[in-house]
Amino acid sequence: MPAQETTPIVPREGWHVLHLFHHVDHAQWSLYSDEEKRQAKTRLTGLIQEIRSTLDTHLLAFSIVSPKADLGFMLLTPDLQVANAFEKQLALSLGPGVLNPAYSYLSMTESSEYTTTRAQYTEETLVGEKGMKPGTDAFEAALKEFDDRMAHYLQHRLYPVLPDWPVICFYPMSKRRSGADNWYSLDYDTRRKLMAGHARTGRTYSGRILQLITGSTGLDEYEWGVTLLAKDTIDIKSIVYEMRFDEVSARFGEFGDFYIGIQLPLDALFRRIGL
Amino acid sequence: MPAQETTPIVPREGWHVLHLFHHVDHAQWSLYSDEEKRQAKTRLTGLIQEIRSTLDTHLLAFSIVSPKADLGFMLLTPDLQVANAFEKQLALSLGPGVLNPAYSYLSMTESSEYTTTRAQYTEETLVGEKGMKPGTDAFEAALKEFDDRMAHYLQHRLYPVLPDWPVICFYPMSKRRSGADNWYSLDYDTRRKLMAGHARTGRTYSGRILQLITGSTGLDEYEWGVTLLAKDTIDIKSIVYEMRFDEVSARFGEFGDFYIGIQLPLDALFRRIGL
Amino acid sequence: MPAQETTPIVPREGWHVLHLFHHVDHAQWSLYSDEEKRQAKTRLTGLIQEIRSTLDTHLLAFSIVSPKADLGFMLLTPDLQVANAFEKQLALSLGPGVLNPAYSYLSMTESSEYTTTRAQYTEETLVGEKGMKPGTDAFEAALKEFDDRMAHYLQHRLYPVLPDWPVICFYPMSKRRSGADNWYSLDYDTRRKLMAGHARTGRTYSGRILQLITGSTGLDEYEWGVTLLAKDTIDIKSIVYEMRFDEVSARFGEFGDFYIGIQLPLDALFRRIGL
Amino acid sequence: MPAQETTPIVPREGWHVLHLFHHVDHAQWSLYSDEEKRQAKTRLTGLIQEIRSTLDTHLLAFSIVSPKADLGFMLLTPDLQVANAFEKQLALSLGPGVLNPAYSYLSMTESSEYTTTRAQYTEETLVGEKGMKPGTDAFEAALKEFDDRMAHYLQHRLYPVLPDWPVICFYPMSKRRSGADNWYSLDYDTRRKLMAGHARTGRTYSGRILQLITGSTGLDEYEWGVTLLAKDTIDIKSIVYEMRFDEVSARFGEFGDFYIGIQLPLDALFRRIGL
Amino acid sequence: MPAQETTPIVPREGWHVLHLFHHVDHAQWSLYSDEEKRQAKTRLTGLIQEIRSTLDTHLLAFSIVSPKADLGFMLLTPDLQVANAFEKQLALSLGPGVLNPAYSYLSMTESSEYTTTRAQYTEETLVGEKGMKPGTDAFEAALKEFDDRMAHYLQHRLYPVLPDWPVICFYPMSKRRSGADNWYSLDYDTRRKLMAGHARTGRTYSGRILQLITGSTGLDEYEWGVTLLAKDTIDIKSIVYEMRFDEVSARFGEFGDFYIGIQLPLDALFRRIGL
Repeated sequence: MPAQETTPIVPREGWHVLHLFHHVDHAQWSLYSDEEKRQAKTRLTGLIQEIRSTLDTHLLAFSIVSPKADLGFMLLTPDLQVANAFEKQLALSLGPGVLNPAYSYLSMTESSEYTTTRAQYTEETLVGEKGMKPGTDAFEAALKEFDDRMAHYLQHRLYPVLPDWPVICFYPMSKRRSGADNWYSLDYDTRRKLMAGHARTGRTYSGRILQLITGSTGLDEYEWGVTLLAKDTIDIKSIVYEMRFDEVSARFGEFGDFYIGIQLPLDALFRRIGL
Repeated sequence: MPAQETTPIVPREGWHVLHLFHHVDHAQWSLYSDEEKRQAKTRLTGLIQEIRSTLDTHLLAFSIVSPKADLGFMLLTPDLQVANAFEKQLALSLGPGVLNPAYSYLSMTESSEYTTTRAQYTEETLVGEKGMKPGTDAFEAALKEFDDRMAHYLQHRLYPVLPDWPVICFYPMSKRRSGADNWYSLDYDTRRKLMAGHARTGRTYSGRILQLITGSTGLDEYEWGVTLLAKDTIDIKSIVYEMRFDEVSARFGEFGDFYIGIQLPLDALFRRIGL
Repeated sequence: MPAQETTPIVPREGWHVLHLFHHVDHAQWSLYSDEEKRQAKTRLTGLIQEIRSTLDTHLLAFSIVSPKADLGFMLLTPDLQVANAFEKQLALSLGPGVLNPAYSYLSMTESSEYTTTRAQYTEETLVGEKGMKPGTDAFEAALKEFDDRMAHYLQHRLYPVLPDWPVICFYPMSKRRSGADNWYSLDYDTRRKLMAGHARTGRTYSGRILQLITGSTGLDEYEWGVTLLAKDTIDIKSIVYEMRFDEVSARFGEFGDFYIGIQLPLDALFRRIGL
Repeated sequence: MPAQETTPIVPREGWHVLHLFHHVDHAQWSLYSDEEKRQAKTRLTGLIQEIRSTLDTHLLAFSIVSPKADLGFMLLTPDLQVANAFEKQLALSLGPGVLNPAYSYLSMTESSEYTTTRAQYTEETLVGEKGMKPGTDAFEAALKEFDDRMAHYLQHRLYPVLPDWPVICFYPMSKRRSGADNWYSLDYDTRRKLMAGHARTGRTYSGRILQLITGSTGLDEYEWGVTLLAKDTIDIKSIVYEMRFDEVSARFGEFGDFYIGIQLPLDALFRRIGL
Repeated sequence: MPAQETTPIVPREGWHVLHLFHHVDHAQWSLYSDEEKRQAKTRLTGLIQEIRSTLDTHLLAFSIVSPKADLGFMLLTPDLQVANAFEKQLALSLGPGVLNPAYSYLSMTESSEYTTTRAQYTEETLVGEKGMKPGTDAFEAALKEFDDRMAHYLQHRLYPVLPDWPVICFYPMSKRRSGADNWYSLDYDTRRKLMAGHARTGRTYSGRILQLITGSTGLDEYEWGVTLLAKDTIDIKSIVYEMRFDEVSARFGEFGDFYIGIQLPLDALFRRIGL
């Protein structure tokens, strides 16, 4: 346990998330003997195993496409102490100066404030749309089904288990606050409606895109981090392009840079980035 | 096959495209003996041959004009695994620390969403403009001619074969989303009309400029990459300048930096950049 | 006393504040023998003790989360000579080239210009709201209670004693001056009302968030520095997110980057950042 | 001939222009023996002579004022192959790693699209203003004088010979495209009128400022490069300041950074920058 | 005389001003023996003496607060050749690679275009406000007093002698040109009135703040450089904060980064920055 000596910093709900994109300094790496290189890779492999065997802790490892970076990690873990300890150990795992930060991002898993509540679902859908009567068996069954779906959704948002789909995309984003396009001046209902349109677009990519939104207001330079997993690069491009026409993105989205990686087994990953 | 061990990531349509602009670190290079330099150049030459002999894979190599960078590559290939493997190998081909990334760009070939459809051509041009009657021989011949032209156009957009014209220009661009100038808030017909004006300007440069637009929304920091090939630098300058007056650029274009390169045979390229 | 030879530069009121975020250059550090490393850490430990035993001088030391930086300090001290001397000594304490600046910020503690005055409290609250009569015992007692509270508040703003809560967040900010959203064109009463709403949001986090606003107009690139201390990262994220909906942030806030650190005892801190 | 092996890339009209601003890495330079330093300076001197003796090719060499850079070159030459070859050779001339790019700019000489045409001059000036009659001797003489002046002007714009005035200023600029201030949405006549006011300001500096505007749309990050030569720094400051009040600059000018250099003989230049 | 071999470049009026902020590379410095360090400091001390004994030439030397930089200089001198020669010598004075530029700024002293003229003073103040009659003794005396005051003011603006107050602040600024807030589209009288309000704020800091405005349009990235000298940091913060509410700053001011330094005797300065 890398942070055993310190008091855990575990949030009331959700996990801490770190996206870590590193350059490999091959000039530094080439100073090592073959034996030292083998040891360094064994050290990183062991560290990754330790991380992955830590309770409620997940680590994705991937090769970054384009020279923006070489080696990428996505770390999810409850305790900020653990996140910090593992992050520093990962950076040093191949020896001093071999991995150098290209970009990184700190965020936390969070539930959406725009999800439909039990009351909204009852009024808008069960009673309003389907004409059901509260108290009937059908009504109760539908409500139960709704509760299960929302619990599952919430579990995925707060404590996600990410699939091993090969293509990973990360980008940070904020909501715009400029002149007439000021997201934070809109009332809740307007924001909820705008977000609902966005969610509809997202659902059409079900099975092709796994999307995880994590919050970073107060933690890093943008307000959210977006992680997309896919099997085909074209689905990444399509969903982000299509969503840009949703009013919520068209008028209010501010995007940082986009990073594309490929999840690989460790040995293939080492070969890919020339280690 | 450099990525044989991994599952291919081949998009439903189109190719992955990487623009790679590197600095040569001559201080690092000067540490090599003449023999080591010869070997390094042979290694890069061999790698380029391997890339160019890979199925459906193309590589342009060029000297960059101005100290923004020295050595440029444009790589087109279907499989993201192959793109990633070749990109990392190119960066290391002259030895660790010799090539250092100055800028890079990841995009994908794509068909335009604003091309004329069969139905539009029939209604607007054949019937509307030329007064032809559906079903007649002339009508069917004209439709056949249209189909052939569009198939050829689509083939070039998705699976381009680029000429060896010496001057290459690359720049990334996005469509603006600010205040009254918000491209993504326009309806499809308005966007189609604006793009048509742009295309007309482009066609007047036929034979002098080869233009390839590739999509990068969700993949890199802008939404498209533009690659221009020409025989005379002045045609690059003229087409980009002239297009800036098209409403679609004037009001909606946001441009990144521009890179100018010269396609050269490898031995001339090595001499040009001092290797 | 590190700046004994120079004339002190002590402001009429308040302290100088320096936020210092450093990278550790592990390649440089790895050149040291174990003995040299031990000596370097002893030197830094001794310097920190010297700083903390200097009159009216406080130093927080923390590990930075994410590779944005490794080692963070927050230094509060009256004399600019002392601040400057300690800051340069901290940067050199582990040996030349080991600590490298990632970001830093110079500000001063200051009282708020928007706090309620005695006259405002009398008119708005005691007489206006509670219907008290000046001169009565109850009135005088309430006024005394107000005076005590304000004196305590002012003391905390100008000469803060910060708790050892583990999570520290720093970010710089300015008030916007663009088009219709120009903070500095508003009259005093409008600004005071907007700030009062902000303060109300802040008070709901009492006991969970300790907030210190320091002024930097004319001193550094933004107009204020904000330091937040918390026990749970989620409270940092919540308060900054919630405040973003206050009109004063939504329309007028411009934010720099956010830095998250963890206050640690020195030995745990050294281990955390791989020293 | 440095680019003899390659096919020339010579534009239909005008020259290629490269502004090259380099830092001197004195730590790298100090590793050389006195003899090696002498040889390096001889090599650069010889290269400069070769460049200056190349047909239609000009090179200005100058010391940069302020640590933004140390050594500056401005290269004008028809063939892009030659420009590229000389630029790479200049960067390497003092040995690997000694000169490092601080900033550079690629543009082309071009005629202005807003110069008065023969027809405009006849109608607006000769007939309209001076009341001359076409066909008369005075009219023909005036027209001849106009033709000569314009031919001389065009020659200077496309194939300039720059004086050896000591102060050189370079900055890149673009025309703004934002909201109501969108240069590229104005019609030609409006733009011509705005540019005419600008030209009038320029003419009042005749004999004190030599101005060369070169085009870079599609070639580099701004749309034009501006080179000013002067004998007194104050004239640089005055003309740029005064022009900022012209509507064409006030509303439509976007400026990059400004570089000030001093043209010096090579031996004085070497001493100035510590070689 | 460092620039004796070249033709002086002395402006018709005013001096050249260079602000130079350097990092000390302590890893490089630590490679020197104690004797080499002593010699380097002696060399820099001698150079500073030479500069300060040059006609009409002034040099302030200061420690920079915060790791933005370590060693700062402000150089005022008539001849651009001398400015350039001294600036390059200062950068090299401690040996190659020891001082590295963090930021620098080139400007010129200048008189304000918004000062009250003799005619304005006569009309607005002597006749308009005080009801004096031209030609009377009192009138002539008042005019003489005005002339003396303006001459003294002009002398300070063009040929300033700066006090040795310990706190020095530098920042660059421009006047905004965006949408409705376009300084350069205002007529002269409006600008003069706006500047007069600004000057009134400034005068309330007389004796506490010495302010020098120098012009840099066409010379560096902003349009003016502002140098403030003070005895108490709080006066720097107060004047800049207070002026931000003047319409001329609120609507039209664009500010670069702010640098705070402390003027110190050379031996104290060396110790402060760890030399």
